[in-house]
Amino acid sequence: MRSGAVRKIMNPSSIAIVGASNNLMKMGTIQCLNLINSGFPGDVLPVNPQEETVLGKKAYPAIGELPYAPDLAILVVPSGLVPEMLEDFGSIGTRHAVVITAGFKETGEEGRDLENTIVEIAERYHMRFLGPNCLGIINTQLPLNITVMPVHHRDGKLGLASQSGTYVAQTLSYLHRNGIAISKAMSVGNEANIDIVDCLEYLGEDDSTKAIALYIEGIRRADRFLEVAREISRKKPIVAQYVGGTEAGARSGSSHTGAMAGPDYVYEGLFEQAGVIRVDTIEEVYKIGWALASQPPLAGSRIAILTNSGGPGTAIANTLNREGLEVPEFSTGVQKEISQYLAGHASARNPVDLTFHIDMDALTEKIPQILFDADDIDGVVIHGIMDTGFFNDVYPIFGKLLDVSEEDFLKMWETNLDRLVEMPFSHRKPLIMSSFFGKEDHAVRVFHEKGIPVLDAPEKAARAMAALHKHYLIRKRPPFQPFQDMTISEDARRIMEAWKGRALDEYRAKKVLGACGIPTTRETLVDTLEEAISSAGEIGYPVVLKVCSPDILHKTEGGMVCLGIKNEEELTKAFHGMREKRRDVPILVSEMLHGDREFMAGMSYFPGFPPCIMFGLGGVFTETLKDNAIRLAPLSKDDAFSMMESLSSRELLGPYRGMKAVDRDVLASILVALGQLALHFPEIGEIDLNPIIIVEGKPKVVDALFVKNM
Amino acid sequence: MRSGAVRKIMNPSSIAIVGASNNLMKMGTIQCLNLINSGFPGDVLPVNPQEETVLGKKAYPAIGELPYAPDLAILVVPSGLVPEMLEDFGSIGTRHAVVITAGFKETGEEGRDLENTIVEIAERYHMRFLGPNCLGIINTQLPLNITVMPVHHRDGKLGLASQSGTYVAQTLSYLHRNGIAISKAMSVGNEANIDIVDCLEYLGEDDSTKAIALYIEGIRRADRFLEVAREISRKKPIVAQYVGGTEAGARSGSSHTGAMAGPDYVYEGLFEQAGVIRVDTIEEVYKIGWALASQPPLAGSRIAILTNSGGPGTAIANTLNREGLEVPEFSTGVQKEISQYLAGHASARNPVDLTFHIDMDALTEKIPQILFDADDIDGVVIHGIMDTGFFNDVYPIFGKLLDVSEEDFLKMWETNLDRLVEMPFSHRKPLIMSSFFGKEDHAVRVFHEKGIPVLDAPEKAARAMAALHKHYLIRKRPPFQPFQDMTISEDARRIMEAWKGRALDEYRAKKVLGACGIPTTRETLVDTLEEAISSAGEIGYPVVLKVCSPDILHKTEGGMVCLGIKNEEELTKAFHGMREKRRDVPILVSEMLHGDREFMAGMSYFPGFPPCIMFGLGGVFTETLKDNAIRLAPLSKDDAFSMMESLSSRELLGPYRGMKAVDRDVLASILVALGQLALHFPEIGEIDLNPIIIVEGKPKVVDALFVKNM
Repeated sequence: MRSGAVRKIMNPSSIAIVGASNNLMKMGTIQCLNLINSGFPGDVLPVNPQEETVLGKKAYPAIGELPYAPDLAILVVPSGLVPEMLEDFGSIGTRHAVVITAGFKETGEEGRDLENTIVEIAERYHMRFLGPNCLGIINTQLPLNITVMPVHHRDGKLGLASQSGTYVAQTLSYLHRNGIAISKAMSVGNEANIDIVDCLEYLGEDDSTKAIALYIEGIRRADRFLEVAREISRKKPIVAQYVGGTEAGARSGSSHTGAMAGPDYVYEGLFEQAGVIRVDTIEEVYKIGWALASQPPLAGSRIAILTNSGGPGTAIANTLNREGLEVPEFSTGVQKEISQYLAGHASARNPVDLTFHIDMDALTEKIPQILFDADDIDGVVIHGIMDTGFFNDVYPIFGKLLDVSEEDFLKMWETNLDRLVEMPFSHRKPLIMSSFFGKEDHAVRVFHEKGIPVLDAPEKAARAMAALHKHYLIRKRPPFQPFQDMTISEDARRIMEAWKGRALDEYRAKKVLGACGIPTTRETLVDTLEEAISSAGEIGYPVVLKVCSPDILHKTEGGMVCLGIKNEEELTKAFHGMREKRRDVPILVSEMLHGDREFMAGMSYFPGFPPCIMFGLGGVFTETLKDNAIRLAPLSKDDAFSMMESLSSRELLGPYRGMKAVDRDVLASILVALGQLALHFPEIGEIDLNPIIIVEGKPKVVDALFVKNM
Repeated sequence: MRSGAVRKIMNPSSIAIVGASNNLMKMGTIQCLNLINSGFPGDVLPVNPQEETVLGKKAYPAIGELPYAPDLAILVVPSGLVPEMLEDFGSIGTRHAVVITAGFKETGEEGRDLENTIVEIAERYHMRFLGPNCLGIINTQLPLNITVMPVHHRDGKLGLASQSGTYVAQTLSYLHRNGIAISKAMSVGNEANIDIVDCLEYLGEDDSTKAIALYIEGIRRADRFLEVAREISRKKPIVAQYVGGTEAGARSGSSHTGAMAGPDYVYEGLFEQAGVIRVDTIEEVYKIGWALASQPPLAGSRIAILTNSGGPGTAIANTLNREGLEVPEFSTGVQKEISQYLAGHASARNPVDLTFHIDMDALTEKIPQILFDADDIDGVVIHGIMDTGFFNDVYPIFGKLLDVSEEDFLKMWETNLDRLVEMPFSHRKPLIMSSFFGKEDHAVRVFHEKGIPVLDAPEKAARAMAALHKHYLIRKRPPFQPFQDMTISEDARRIMEAWKGRALDEYRAKKVLGACGIPTTRETLVDTLEEAISSAGEIGYPVVLKVCSPDILHKTEGGMVCLGIKNEEELTKAFHGMREKRRDVPILVSEMLHGDREFMAGMSYFPGFPPCIMFGLGGVFTETLKDNAIRLAPLSKDDAFSMMESLSSRELLGPYRGMKAVDRDVLASILVALGQLALHFPEIGEIDLNPIIIVEGKPKVVDALFVKNM
């Protein structure tokens, strides 16, 4: 298990650090200071040839002179020194390292060579390392922190793995201000040895981590990411941001950590398949991650909203609905119970809007109790609990009039939230708070301490609840049905072996597909008119004639296809017409299908990814509507069904406007088979099945193209 | 001008307030306190029968005993007292009021009656009032503040009008913490007299307001909103959130301010047409509003990114690209200039990534100067400037080692930002900052003071820049071409006059359309086979037969349509077949069109809205893909072109895959004419033109339905 190496790196009992001195302006020194101050219970062994002591710790002049082989080596030194030092640590028996140093493959050719060198050294010594070009690790359980910033808490629940060091270091005070407590954090840098997938696997196994948050510029092992994430996400929520899906994002990521990025829609498919909840901002990575880590699971879609302000209540209701959650009107019983705490013009329906009032009791205890007790409510969002934040703000105007100090005045207004903060845990229903106040507000501080997420806008609270709902749906997915190898017929095998050149012609491509159980048009390859006439007779008119050659990719536009040939006379004319254009290639006689819908399927590769299977709206709409979904091979049938469900035009799968429902099972078999075919024949670089025509509900592949992997 | 009343309400020289006392727990008292403390330069006249003085001001026992008629009356009293008091103010000559009191139409029937009563009183006295059920107004120029929270600045630039009081009151300290300074703010409440459109108009005219931000639960006068916003938005940016577009959002809004909400897509079209930049969260209303209010306009789409951290830089680049902005690699000249300030492995391409370093000089002055000077850069986003926020965070670990107080230590690190904060204004290029620090950071405080927006996440900074780009595109729009009344033929007029029943039959509907210049199929209405045969001869085979009756709405499904009739024999058979199904109605003989694409257009009404014109993908895809756009009548041709542009399937308008380009001019004429038709004949409640078939690039309406406004 590669995750074992991460566990060791995260739990050392002794750490040597090279690059720390007593110069407080040096990054290595700051990291060593943080390490010492983090409360790390093991030995800290600075290596420094110039100093007797570093930050009060005895310093060793060289790695070779360390008293013993430390569990973990940390390198914050110029890049040219890294190979030798890694070698030295290897020699003394240290097996784990964190290479903070930058200047490797993210800088170009020379750096790439240097990175290869350290990879080779590590392999030689069976060492595992994080980085280079990273910002370190945090383990709040041990505790241990080697980043440049202090950690403000212990025993958090959110695990982070990030391809940006900033997001596990410079943002620590941001996280603290927002009440977000992390369990473990790893900056993975260039991932020369340990990658984000290893870290994900480790976080999945780590009991103290209740939800996992990822920042991703590019995944190097998408197949393994899928395997690992798919398993974890059925129990533990994973939230991820991907920023490499545009030209500028990919270019920036490449010079940042040498990341290999892929198109956005490929990652969209990967995350969907893996049960990863995708978010668009680092704020959501943290805040939605925190909601998922800190709250009990949501067991349905019915959300109650409680507020003292109509605008936020309406915004929460609207956002919940937009995200597919319900805001049901409460039962009359519940409404009646609530009404006793409401002023005459306030609404008890849902949202419950107390309207402006200063007494916090109904908002913090009485009505929440009713909502948590109600059987037909699955989760609660509250906006408007605030105490000292609000009164701190109005003290300047009250101050002149009241004979009370600011401190006493604020004390007066501190709300007792003891019962509210227990409710989500005792009732196993999530609670999300929305407040325009931060830590300056006593109520917000209490929520932070008690692990109740406070989002700083109503819509964000609603979206956090929506993420809990997404996780609820992911948990309900059936387990992945592992890949069953497909039997490939001798015929198909022979065709594949005989394949020369870049493209495989339509006839042979369809023969291979047919051998994999994919339904294709009935057709014959002919050279002469006589053969054509005889084949058409067997197939039955109307038929289609197509020039069949691997070097003619756009048949329709070149007049190389003739549709709807009704009789021998038309066939003869069409055959001669085609022969005039191309004498040297065979002609395909196919059955003419009259379908009512067209779809498409395909396979292509992206760097670091296994074969990617695509399914979408076909025919004339393929390019303009781009309504399609991607999943990675091997696909389960459930993956294939989920591809169909994710199309905007899924209603077209019917029954729809008098058309029969498409046989989804056949469609799913086609998609699963495509993936297996690609895995079986890695020489296929691209498959294009377009259109797949639906006749009486049955899908049939009408045109097919294979392109070789070059 | 109705906006004149708003101007008067916002600039009174004397204010009477009823409902304030010396009880600090009362909302009226808090509002009066804020009014007094806001620095309002005019007279404050509390009316209170129990008190000699209120908050130190002489109190008057009754409205009738005020020394003179104040410019503005503020009522914070039980709802039942409002009518009488409004009457009293009317009697003494006060012409403007703010009714804070809730308990009107948002509570149901009784409240609605009470609201009607005060509307009637106001009309009688020619009074104009804001509210009821609102939270007041703020004018930071006067200054004047009657909300429940203090305002922390003067002379802001962002104007707010909100259908939620919270968003102009409880959020004031949130705005202050985020460095957002408002010029004017209005809580419009139930809009019984003055509505959000009046406020928008006023903010458009207000010179101190540089951008306008709106929170909307439902617009009562969409036609006027469109007129006003369209004019303003070509000069001054307008940003708006709409929360009434879902079932729960609409229900919540209705019990909040009695708002009449409409479907989300209708508001989407209205905002697009009006040049309003739509956002999804209140945070964006404020923060994007602030970016628009505080920064010079963006004059292109080429953005430079400067950062000390790869992750945020990549996230900004990716988000900018996703939003349609460019992150071009800099010219070699610019890269060379930048490189002199970079460490060896840092990237000068764009993003410029300084990587982790403590010296802020390159980030705050040297490189920004190069970027602002560069001709091929239109705007700049910087992430990573921080000083005391960061050092405050690390002081606990440095503190033990340094012989310096925290204050002196922080002072050491204060960055000089004098030159940077001038650059956007001297170079007329916008600058947006991203920082994970808030006001605890000296650099952030400087940006706040100098009107440079600081967004608390990289993606938000990118989105703010994207909003500036949207406004740039809106400014470039041609001015609205005012409505030219269409000539309606006598024929059309007669058909409309003769229209009885709910639906108008296809034949007559198309006659009316044809009279408005909309191209329709050639067709004749017949009763006998002989007439049918003669008509088909004139039209030319193939033809279509359709049963023509206003009470048969779904012709296709009932077998009431027969397509592709090739000769007299087929015609005879089809005619008899139809006659067997329906003896009593005439039959339509139409030309048979062979098109290559199908679109649809329509007209429908929504409460508070003028006729809404829809255009979209037609035929079988209409309902499943819902790819359509809405604009409000009257439409300009540019509105119609913009509808076409907003379709996902706009490429289908071609030229596309061998199909001719659709004649967009004809399509635009159809959409403009639909709007004019609806305005001319308000008895039409709904028009449905589906499909509009494209033949050789020319659109023709094949089926049409008019439904009467009931």
